[in-house]
Amino acid sequence: MLISNGDRIEGLIKDTMEQKEKIKLGHGSGGRMSQELFESLFQPLFSNEYLNEAHDGAILKMGDNRIAFSTDSFVVKPLFFPGGNIGDLAVNGTVNDVTMCGADPQFISAGFILEEGFPIVQLQQIVTSMQTAAEKAGVLLVTGDTKVVERGSADGVFINTSGIGVVRRNVSISPKNAREGDVILINGRIAEHGIAVMTKREGMEFESSILSDCMALNKMVGAILDETDDVHVLRDPTRGGIAATLNEIAQSSSKGIDLIENKIPLDDQVKSVSSILGLDPLYIANEGKVLVIVAEKSADKVLETMKQFYEGRESAIIGRITNNHPGRVVMETSIGTKRIVDMPSGEQLPRIC
Amino acid sequence: MLISNGDRIEGLIKDTMEQKEKIKLGHGSGGRMSQELFESLFQPLFSNEYLNEAHDGAILKMGDNRIAFSTDSFVVKPLFFPGGNIGDLAVNGTVNDVTMCGADPQFISAGFILEEGFPIVQLQQIVTSMQTAAEKAGVLLVTGDTKVVERGSADGVFINTSGIGVVRRNVSISPKNAREGDVILINGRIAEHGIAVMTKREGMEFESSILSDCMALNKMVGAILDETDDVHVLRDPTRGGIAATLNEIAQSSSKGIDLIENKIPLDDQVKSVSSILGLDPLYIANEGKVLVIVAEKSADKVLETMKQFYEGRESAIIGRITNNHPGRVVMETSIGTKRIVDMPSGEQLPRIC
Repeated sequence: MLISNGDRIEGLIKDTMEQKEKIKLGHGSGGRMSQELFESLFQPLFSNEYLNEAHDGAILKMGDNRIAFSTDSFVVKPLFFPGGNIGDLAVNGTVNDVTMCGADPQFISAGFILEEGFPIVQLQQIVTSMQTAAEKAGVLLVTGDTKVVERGSADGVFINTSGIGVVRRNVSISPKNAREGDVILINGRIAEHGIAVMTKREGMEFESSILSDCMALNKMVGAILDETDDVHVLRDPTRGGIAATLNEIAQSSSKGIDLIENKIPLDDQVKSVSSILGLDPLYIANEGKVLVIVAEKSADKVLETMKQFYEGRESAIIGRITNNHPGRVVMETSIGTKRIVDMPSGEQLPRIC
Repeated sequence: MLISNGDRIEGLIKDTMEQKEKIKLGHGSGGRMSQELFESLFQPLFSNEYLNEAHDGAILKMGDNRIAFSTDSFVVKPLFFPGGNIGDLAVNGTVNDVTMCGADPQFISAGFILEEGFPIVQLQQIVTSMQTAAEKAGVLLVTGDTKVVERGSADGVFINTSGIGVVRRNVSISPKNAREGDVILINGRIAEHGIAVMTKREGMEFESSILSDCMALNKMVGAILDETDDVHVLRDPTRGGIAATLNEIAQSSSKGIDLIENKIPLDDQVKSVSSILGLDPLYIANEGKVLVIVAEKSADKVLETMKQFYEGRESAIIGRITNNHPGRVVMETSIGTKRIVDMPSGEQLPRIC
């Protein structure tokens, strides 16, 4: 009797606590809190072979093809930032997510949620940027939807884009596939998108010189995949920066990751601004970067291919996959010490994409 | 010199006017203002063979298949209403849009925009409803995204779903395809979703007895398509009600539509509540209805098939396609007069889906 009452009370306390739990900004961070929300709420309910891959997109068997399918909602603030706006961000973001599945993105959708009173001239600028970005990436916007909510019920405009494309026949790309000895490449300087948005948002004076890296990566990645079948993982390190993405790869593959700080491309100004803001560039969002994990024997060839593209002109080898410290990312710092690069927990920079 | 100054001034006035144009609630109505926004803003920029179809979704050639692809954002208020919530609405809405392309919906994505402070227990209820709806419809949720915005920058939760499915080989379904003599069927009573949401929102006392018709139609429509190749148009009359959808079909096909008021299934209570609210049921949203336009010779067979399903137990033939009055919908009223059923202009019921 006592025990069962105790159980009931414990249950009641648990229920009450759960009822008090609220969504926090950190649940949208792309870090540990996002992961926990996904694992506690979505995965148990929707468990299926596709969703469980926890990739940037799903790779689906449809008819005789494999189709990559991805979705992203964009809530960036401010809507216009140095180097881009919510429109090209929404197109490039989804183009890149489909690309990371080893697919050639072909078609995208756009769903707009507009706040009553939003200036149509600004919407025109945003939609024009979407068109320009789509044309550059070679994708067609084929279907869409527009909803309007009352003033005060949204913040200007939110955009969802979803994208589809046929997965290449010769590839099997997944965060699970990292293997010991694989080499990790990145196509250029990190943290520029996050810093560009933050400086604009905070009204910092030097804003004009740091631009978002927002761009589509499908052409460069396509060239890599034309060249070799040895690519094991492709991921774009957006929210949570390369720290979050590399931790996800380490966890999915049960491998360790060794990074070399000196090799990670980083603009001096981005470095100083990050330090002024108390932020670590490893944790800051990118919107035109890809982490390519490839068998050692093909790494130099892939690096050379990447460097031939504007998107990859500053590509570098930044680390390796190891059987040591599985599930962990360890960085050799510029002063020669080792540092564990943890998964970010909460929201460092809200509304960064 | 004078002329060129005049031109400049005219240009400036025009610019200033454009700069003053703001998004209004009516732009999200699904009626004429939505159409104008699409035609003035999106279509000129993104003109392509797929988008120009202006269907519920796009029908795409991908590899050896035709793939239907659709997207919808949901901003319904309140989030929970008699007969459903934003979760099952988001799943069923996209399942139905893919279905209307003559495809079997297979996979959906979900993008959440959450307001900081939203109770997780409510999110759980919504996500659970999504899972139940997906399972019922036989679709898998395979990819998703979650963003969080600060308190006051959104209204609880907005959900975007996109969906894909393989288009059946034997079908060519498009609003353009309506032909003279074709018969128009609907699978049951109209206006129930809109009235259920409105009564809840307005706190009207009789709310409990009118439920949203929110449900997936893919199984019933699949059975129709198994049976006949004679289906020319499938559309789900959501925002703007059957009036908006039938006007779109009349415009796309350059045919006229004759409706018979007495034949349109309508619940008595929905009729009285509509009249109290000063609303016309023809213009009120449905979320579990389909307009099937089929060659006359197959109409009875299709009606019989529809009636075998719970979703179609009250199916009826409600009108015909005609070469008279092209682009117009004309209704024979219950008192024997003729009434033109116009495209709705602005927003009758904001945030209905």
